[in-house]
Amino acid sequence: MSGDGGERNLRVVLAYDGTDFYGWQRQVGVPTVQAAVEEKLERITGEPVRVIAAGRTDTGVHASGQVVNFRTRGSIPADRVAVAMNSRPPYTVVARRVREVPAAFHARFDAVSRTYRYYLLRAGPSPFLGRYSCPAAQLSEEGLERIRAAASELTGRHDFTSFCAAGSETRTRVRTMRAVGVRTRGPLVALTFTADGFLQGMVRNIVGTLLEIARGKRQVGEFAGILAARDRRAAGESAPPQGLFLTHIEYGAEGE
Amino acid sequence: MSGDGGERNLRVVLAYDGTDFYGWQRQVGVPTVQAAVEEKLERITGEPVRVIAAGRTDTGVHASGQVVNFRTRGSIPADRVAVAMNSRPPYTVVARRVREVPAAFHARFDAVSRTYRYYLLRAGPSPFLGRYSCPAAQLSEEGLERIRAAASELTGRHDFTSFCAAGSETRTRVRTMRAVGVRTRGPLVALTFTADGFLQGMVRNIVGTLLEIARGKRQVGEFAGILAARDRRAAGESAPPQGLFLTHIEYGAEGE
Repeated sequence: MSGDGGERNLRVVLAYDGTDFYGWQRQVGVPTVQAAVEEKLERITGEPVRVIAAGRTDTGVHASGQVVNFRTRGSIPADRVAVAMNSRPPYTVVARRVREVPAAFHARFDAVSRTYRYYLLRAGPSPFLGRYSCPAAQLSEEGLERIRAAASELTGRHDFTSFCAAGSETRTRVRTMRAVGVRTRGPLVALTFTADGFLQGMVRNIVGTLLEIARGKRQVGEFAGILAARDRRAAGESAPPQGLFLTHIEYGAEGE
Repeated sequence: MSGDGGERNLRVVLAYDGTDFYGWQRQVGVPTVQAAVEEKLERITGEPVRVIAAGRTDTGVHASGQVVNFRTRGSIPADRVAVAMNSRPPYTVVARRVREVPAAFHARFDAVSRTYRYYLLRAGPSPFLGRYSCPAAQLSEEGLERIRAAASELTGRHDFTSFCAAGSETRTRVRTMRAVGVRTRGPLVALTFTADGFLQGMVRNIVGTLLEIARGKRQVGEFAGILAARDRRAAGESAPPQGLFLTHIEYGAEGE
């Protein structure tokens, strides 16, 4: 696709364990996923690299299907980039697939939807699953039913200000929630959210509020009112970051 | 069971992520699981504590069912010990169950059998499963059949010197392997070994050798000869520690 010496646009699907990173975005003096990815790519291509990510995950949040793109004049074949990325530290940041895409592809602007999944652990503390879930040992079947009932209010087009981190800068807080799923898998409960976009802290604020509803601190019937309030103070506490995964980014036919 | 001011013997089932520890046993200047457990218990009981473990796991090896016991004159109820242990760092060391046992119970000497499980990952690198498995993306169905066939030679009473770490001090290297299991679970293959006891490095040396057989570097028919050789040099390389879990300790009726 690239001419001689021309710039190529490479699209990378990333998975990472967010535990040891201060989130996606570069910050001076602390390790971030963006810095780790760019440093790997700079060593591989021998050029300065800036990557564009579909979703900017917060501190401690994981990804199994983050998508990024970057431009390079280097000649390394796309399929070798993944192997080279996975052959150097940090090994907690892994390239799942790399391929060349049209010059216009933009991982963030072209994303049609994003999917986040949040795991609750309905069991005692675990040194393994605890790293990737929020403790919810007391969550009963009835509590799970209350979560299902309340979460069903989320689908559709809403102003999600009530679930947006304070101080977040964004033009509009209206997003369309395409799907919400609640599934159990052994001791884990997976809450899956697919939307055209997410506000900062949105999933964790939703999950924290659903957990308050599960344990009866709030009623199922209150949830619609919390959403309608467009006020962060109406919602519950934020759920901890380690349960959250960015799992999938959807693009139109061109970006897939 | 304890008289006033008498010493109680408490039995703790532990799970831990071995990634950040230099194995079970106390060593000066480095973090070990034993030191972490004893420090937690010393803070909880207010006394010096020494714990006895059923299995001394190596650096980087995990446990989901390690059993230890310790004696205390403290009065904290057994069920509160688990909660207290899990309320302080490191959170990668978790108490699953704690209960009082007869004074004579000894976690190491009374163990009737130990079970270790080793996970192979038949998929590309994963930042999540990679922490708890050995990469084996190339392992084919045929390779898996070769592992099954060779592993079946292990059951029964054998001198396992060929799979014992060099320099290991032990009176006898004869152990009885009660059961060996090979099961697939999604992208993971679990190799499970139950024996009355294990020599140092034994599971990892067995798995490393099985992997050489899987990829045809050695023949299935060679495995019995490797075992019979009673020579570490006859076997293959050691498999890496992060795939290994101490999963279960069995006791007679009294210790359970």
